[in-house]
Amino acid sequence: MLHNDQLSQWDRENFFHPSTHLAQHARGETATRIIRTASGCHIEDREGNKLLDAFAGLYCVNVGYGRQEIAEAIADQARELAYYHAYVGHGTEASVTLSKMILDRAPDHMSKVYFGLGGSDANETNVKLIWYYNNILGRPEKKKIISRWRGYHGSGLVTGSLTGLELFHKKFDLPLAQVIHTDAPYYFRRTDAAQSEDQFVAQCVASLEELIAREGADTIAAFIGEPVLGTGGIVPPPAGYWDAIQAVLRKHDILLVADEVVTGFGRLGTMFGSTHYGMTPDIITIAKGLTSAYAPLSGSIVSDKIWKVLEQGTDENGPIGHGWTYSAHPIGAAAGVANLKLLDDLNLISNAGSVGAYLNQTMQEALGDHPHVGEIRGEGMLCAVEFVKDRDSRTFFDANDKIGPQIAAALLAQGVIGRAMPQGDILGFAPPFCLTKAEADEVVAKTVTAVNTVFQG
Amino acid sequence: MLHNDQLSQWDRENFFHPSTHLAQHARGETATRIIRTASGCHIEDREGNKLLDAFAGLYCVNVGYGRQEIAEAIADQARELAYYHAYVGHGTEASVTLSKMILDRAPDHMSKVYFGLGGSDANETNVKLIWYYNNILGRPEKKKIISRWRGYHGSGLVTGSLTGLELFHKKFDLPLAQVIHTDAPYYFRRTDAAQSEDQFVAQCVASLEELIAREGADTIAAFIGEPVLGTGGIVPPPAGYWDAIQAVLRKHDILLVADEVVTGFGRLGTMFGSTHYGMTPDIITIAKGLTSAYAPLSGSIVSDKIWKVLEQGTDENGPIGHGWTYSAHPIGAAAGVANLKLLDDLNLISNAGSVGAYLNQTMQEALGDHPHVGEIRGEGMLCAVEFVKDRDSRTFFDANDKIGPQIAAALLAQGVIGRAMPQGDILGFAPPFCLTKAEADEVVAKTVTAVNTVFQG
Repeated sequence: MLHNDQLSQWDRENFFHPSTHLAQHARGETATRIIRTASGCHIEDREGNKLLDAFAGLYCVNVGYGRQEIAEAIADQARELAYYHAYVGHGTEASVTLSKMILDRAPDHMSKVYFGLGGSDANETNVKLIWYYNNILGRPEKKKIISRWRGYHGSGLVTGSLTGLELFHKKFDLPLAQVIHTDAPYYFRRTDAAQSEDQFVAQCVASLEELIAREGADTIAAFIGEPVLGTGGIVPPPAGYWDAIQAVLRKHDILLVADEVVTGFGRLGTMFGSTHYGMTPDIITIAKGLTSAYAPLSGSIVSDKIWKVLEQGTDENGPIGHGWTYSAHPIGAAAGVANLKLLDDLNLISNAGSVGAYLNQTMQEALGDHPHVGEIRGEGMLCAVEFVKDRDSRTFFDANDKIGPQIAAALLAQGVIGRAMPQGDILGFAPPFCLTKAEADEVVAKTVTAVNTVFQG
Repeated sequence: MLHNDQLSQWDRENFFHPSTHLAQHARGETATRIIRTASGCHIEDREGNKLLDAFAGLYCVNVGYGRQEIAEAIADQARELAYYHAYVGHGTEASVTLSKMILDRAPDHMSKVYFGLGGSDANETNVKLIWYYNNILGRPEKKKIISRWRGYHGSGLVTGSLTGLELFHKKFDLPLAQVIHTDAPYYFRRTDAAQSEDQFVAQCVASLEELIAREGADTIAAFIGEPVLGTGGIVPPPAGYWDAIQAVLRKHDILLVADEVVTGFGRLGTMFGSTHYGMTPDIITIAKGLTSAYAPLSGSIVSDKIWKVLEQGTDENGPIGHGWTYSAHPIGAAAGVANLKLLDDLNLISNAGSVGAYLNQTMQEALGDHPHVGEIRGEGMLCAVEFVKDRDSRTFFDANDKIGPQIAAALLAQGVIGRAMPQGDILGFAPPFCLTKAEADEVVAKTVTAVNTVFQG
């Protein structure tokens, strides 16, 4: 077995980590953490530290770690047929079966699934398909995509443009011109504190209408949104938001893409966030929960309406010029089939709903009145605690104080992983669906300690 | 077990295949082929058809199918730790080890590897890094990327723009403005038949110089190219091409990205195409051969020169805002480690060189004088046969005659998979590195039969 110090050296010399301070890491100023094994809600590193992962990796290990049913499905597929491509009508039993299982679970008006690797490339596919769709319909000017500030839709050039967070734009020349942004549905951060939730929704609608009027509806192809804002702060929408937004989109013939990378396959306690909030999307983006991250796999589920135009397009132009070598990769497909079965067999989506509600309620009881807690919010197995300098005047801390990261670090020191969301002092939780009430209690108790440590420290 | 007819129905009802005629497939006018198992150079479908795959999937199953060493590495990793993320300095023994193995094999001036999922997202990362690089260096205008017509660099919006093939642009509004194209180094298709290879290279250089002068060198960040053109026709460069191109790039301070998705890890009989042709790239794109497709994994290997600026960037701006959830996925990393070991242990790169040369020579002897064969070309375990209407006048067939696809179909009818390349009547071969001379003989003999069937049919 390799010594940790050797791995650490190799790491610093060779490994370019995502979302990392590269210079500090190379100089050895930040920790290298080599994860060795994991089970249920716990991961263990090579130094023997065992951590309760209340963020499920990056909100993706939904069924929990160490599920041997999925591992064996992957192993069997690897032994029999690790790879063949899916181009020109090729498939495997696993990929075809998974396509059927996905459509069985998706809203009735959805038609087909295109498989990718991760959420970013799935949203890339979506934009390509939307442009193609309007070209086939003879509307070459109808191409812009509206996204929301604080939305997260990927880290590529176009998908990073869809993402509405400064960290992903800065120094990368993003957003590109094809993407425009509208208001985040973030009631807690409304400009006018006196506004009611209804008034705030009306303002979001007015703002969207203004944007469409300014740009011209005939230049706008689609609107993309997560049912619940994820990386932008774990923010469920205000009541009535999706109904009101969809009315505007329908009026202007603008497609709706529901980015369900985080919410798809059960995180809200229901199969899809779209049905949870009464959304009728034209395309649904899926990734993380599709395989619980046991193997890379994403998807774009397209509606009947989109599919009909894609068919017309290939009748007029021949085979569609879009494909990834690893589309519908057999290992990912096998993992997906086993994962969706496990969700059903163990009733995990229902558990996500009930234990998620328990986690939110317990967190609210423990910290809801804390003078530096501005809001505790969540839905299903998502929970966020937002910290403020002053509760009554809703004043925020200076970003340089790094209150969120400090609290996440104090929590980690007690063996619990939460995530400091990147824009604001927000501590996020997105545990595996198999979280128990006892584990939820542990998360809450240690969060209280972490909060007290930082604010009394 | 599921019946084939049921799978076929599920397939048509639910599965959106890449690079497929969607309408024909949904209507049942094209075949569904469900692949069940595979071993060595052979795949087998659920109807029991056994095929010699002389394209290694999509030139990716380099070590051949059914390698239990890789399957077991995947299985072990899946059982122990299927997933943890690589953000903020996290890793696994497999991902750290693989980063070291890659840098041990890469040219000396390379520094670090960023892991992605497939070639498209790796090139997406590259463009992002190149823009960041020039922003950090205070050259915000130096951003355009030069690619070549017939280059293949992916199927996304920016990466599909880098790709210089009409099929990937048509109806998708590509290429985007940030990408500009220069001549393909395709000597056989030179406009002036009287040109020598040297004269042709001089013309490629002059054409590149003109493009740079027209756009302004201070607006051009990088040049991307495959050492050997892949999907554009399997075209090795004319002698002296890369030396001459690199001299121009150096003069104008333009970075070089070597897209080694096809050539990396041995396909030319050498570890990298860059060293094979004396290229000194600033970034190397890797994917297919990194895992032999047993699991999705790609990479961007950056040079010392790039890395130093990335470090400066994070010292000035904090953590880099780039990351995929599945970057350095443990299953892909485990597959990569086992795959690179297997390449060494079985001496497969040397076999790719020697049997590849044998395949090319045998094909030349069998078809080199055929009146409808314009050129047979290759390098290492790559071989292409280009068909022409008239050999002496180098007249091409009308694309509507689909001569290439007809010959590929006639070859498939005999149980051998070659690939009709998408732009021109070119039959391509890229077999697994474990191809035997007997299998090479079979590929050649059946190609001869296929050619005769189509031209005498």
